Amino acid sequence: MSRIVFDRVSYLTPDGVIAVANIRIVEGIITEITDEAIACVPGDERISLPHKLLLPGLVNAHGHAPMSLLRGLKDDAPLAEWLQAHMWPAEARYTAADVRAGAMLAMMEMIASGTTTFLDMYDHMDVVAQAVEDVGMRAVLSRGIIGLCSEVEQAAKVAQAQAFVRDWHGAAQGRITAMVAPHALYTCPPALVETLIGVAHAYRVPLHIHLSETAHEVAQHVVQYGMRPPVHLQQLGAYDLSLVVAHAVHVDDAEIAAFAAHGVSVVHNPRSNLKLASGVAPIPQMLQAGVNVCLGTDSAASNNNLDMFQELRTAALVHKGITYDPTAVPAHAAWHMATRAGAQALQLPHVGHIAVGMQADVIAIDVRAPHLQPNAKLPSHIVYAASGADVTDVWTAGKRLLCNREYTTIDEERVRFDVAQACARIRA
Amino acid sequence: MSRIVFDRVSYLTPDGVIAVANIRIVEGIITEITDEAIACVPGDERISLPHKLLLPGLVNAHGHAPMSLLRGLKDDAPLAEWLQAHMWPAEARYTAADVRAGAMLAMMEMIASGTTTFLDMYDHMDVVAQAVEDVGMRAVLSRGIIGLCSEVEQAAKVAQAQAFVRDWHGAAQGRITAMVAPHALYTCPPALVETLIGVAHAYRVPLHIHLSETAHEVAQHVVQYGMRPPVHLQQLGAYDLSLVVAHAVHVDDAEIAAFAAHGVSVVHNPRSNLKLASGVAPIPQMLQAGVNVCLGTDSAASNNNLDMFQELRTAALVHKGITYDPTAVPAHAAWHMATRAGAQALQLPHVGHIAVGMQADVIAIDVRAPHLQPNAKLPSHIVYAASGADVTDVWTAGKRLLCNREYTTIDEERVRFDVAQACARIRA
Repeated sequence: MSRIVFDRVSYLTPDGVIAVANIRIVEGIITEITDEAIACVPGDERISLPHKLLLPGLVNAHGHAPMSLLRGLKDDAPLAEWLQAHMWPAEARYTAADVRAGAMLAMMEMIASGTTTFLDMYDHMDVVAQAVEDVGMRAVLSRGIIGLCSEVEQAAKVAQAQAFVRDWHGAAQGRITAMVAPHALYTCPPALVETLIGVAHAYRVPLHIHLSETAHEVAQHVVQYGMRPPVHLQQLGAYDLSLVVAHAVHVDDAEIAAFAAHGVSVVHNPRSNLKLASGVAPIPQMLQAGVNVCLGTDSAASNNNLDMFQELRTAALVHKGITYDPTAVPAHAAWHMATRAGAQALQLPHVGHIAVGMQADVIAIDVRAPHLQPNAKLPSHIVYAASGADVTDVWTAGKRLLCNREYTTIDEERVRFDVAQACARIRA
Repeated sequence: MSRIVFDRVSYLTPDGVIAVANIRIVEGIITEITDEAIACVPGDERISLPHKLLLPGLVNAHGHAPMSLLRGLKDDAPLAEWLQAHMWPAEARYTAADVRAGAMLAMMEMIASGTTTFLDMYDHMDVVAQAVEDVGMRAVLSRGIIGLCSEVEQAAKVAQAQAFVRDWHGAAQGRITAMVAPHALYTCPPALVETLIGVAHAYRVPLHIHLSETAHEVAQHVVQYGMRPPVHLQQLGAYDLSLVVAHAVHVDDAEIAAFAAHGVSVVHNPRSNLKLASGVAPIPQMLQAGVNVCLGTDSAASNNNLDMFQELRTAALVHKGITYDPTAVPAHAAWHMATRAGAQALQLPHVGHIAVGMQADVIAIDVRAPHLQPNAKLPSHIVYAASGADVTDVWTAGKRLLCNREYTTIDEERVRFDVAQACARIRA
């Protein structure tokens, strides 16, 4: 039985303050947080973390891990051109081995920067799931479906999505769960989206989709279907599901109200939206309306890193500047988006806080770094000053994945080698 | 005589591509860059940097180093309240020793994140200059003057500013130069600004000032003086000097044209402007008009870190998103702002590039980091994926200040101790 005791560790409480306590973890669950000394039991691993602060692991609620192979392939281009002229042709050359190499690289980066849970939407998802099982992260995975193909091909993709849910939902001792993921309304015909909504209903898993990412997408949808994408998605029945929409940059008040009313979670990807010149999602309005807003990096091909600390800082900063309101997204709201709100969107009620009964998905940062001095306001620093590089240790479900900045489950030389091999062909 | 040879090192050329060469540095100057092997001379320090990329050191063109003691003191408040209710009362408690502690902390952070040159505007500037001389950075320093006081006090501050220029301009083998710095038009009466313009003329040094940072500042100035701040500053004669203005968030086309026509450099501080909800400066328009735009972090009290890699990425991203133009501030423009444009504003013609005849102000980053993989597009990664934490080594004027992430001229335990002591009193 796996047992860990953190001795006199500084940690961030669910209330957002720093406390010192002894914390016991049994079989991946936080079972005790106490001021009292915890008696030693044979088999306990006792860990002391001087100069470190324990935080909940971050939840990256939208991404495409295998696209890390395409980092920097094309910058300074708008979404449509970037996707159709650069990403899709390169992705057409991916093999399953390339998907694994890209997923491993993304997990290396995510672990090193403090992410313990990630959502992913891509092809060859069984390969990604196997990599997740091997590495030890927590992930919510889906076979992303682009329906710009024949009905026969669409049906094959639906079958793959079904098989993926059947094979992997709840796998790896529950670390892996599944979703159903039509890529977007502009890449999937309505009938296909309806079919996938049916699959999600049948397997009782959430639906994940890109929605209203660019003004062009919204305008085109109105031309083609006579209504805006969120209205269409609701008509197709998706709002009756647990639904997680990525981006929602171009949404109006009525659409925001409908998100709130139907418990639709929105994944904000501020850096990807800025880089692709898609715009800035109206996050303050969504928070005001009570929408569950969480945070994602999107892929390394449009960001171009997966550092959730940088992402949450961008979320905290950009809305202040463009609304002239310094309280637009306060520090605690940005932190919530990157942790609990993500866990809620991903239906992981025991993830995102350090509290008794929660999963032991925790990370440590070294607070001696100059940019975290003075230490008086660490809850501010983790939002406004820290970066993923401050992370020294990572545990997921009580298993240590990073120990003093060294990977415990990844051979990084091997990953770099595989990445170089894959890229030599894909990016040729 | 100090001599360094970098053997077969990967470096970023002034054209923005990666090349491999042998580089010789003699007495702090790059004297040779060649494909040929460089013959060994007794006394040469030969350095090999496997897995690393040599870049020019970054130029942080606007800041207040001692304010690092106030990091996180007050977040999520607008500039006027933040400054008057929180910063100024704390700063009134600063002693010279506190200024040194804050400056040392800021330099620790800047060196660790790849900045080799910084501009600073603050009080007790002789203490900052001494710290710069001790540590080995390059700095352009000024006694920042707030004129909200009696004429006797104003005159004393002017005398301090003069003494500082006299004592320190060109000191530390030229690593330290001086400027004259009225804090802003809203904190200095016009007569005082005119006096300081006269001082700058007399000593032939540039003028540095905060300008049009908030809409409120501009509106108030129009009410009080019947004209906008840049027009007023020009009328007072500042445009006849070498002039560096910080922020310029709220400027119109005519003001931008005047900046370009008179060679006024603008320091863009995107994260500070976002955090204080001041807005987003019209940088694409300035670049279009030919203004020399450089980059600063502002202080750690409003940012809240001094990482120029994060700053330049924000500059590259935020304008794309709000103008819907993915080419608004291309990668190479952001990099130029953080290096050569800063050097130009600071009148340091031999800083900001790796080329023969330039100062050996160079940094190395470890390109094995997962977020810099694959390595195919490193010039993109340094803008869109890197952070200051990737920096492993720093040289300024040929002297190594950071060696494999260890400081060579700073006792970091001592700095943390001094910072804690100072903060216990200042932030009480």
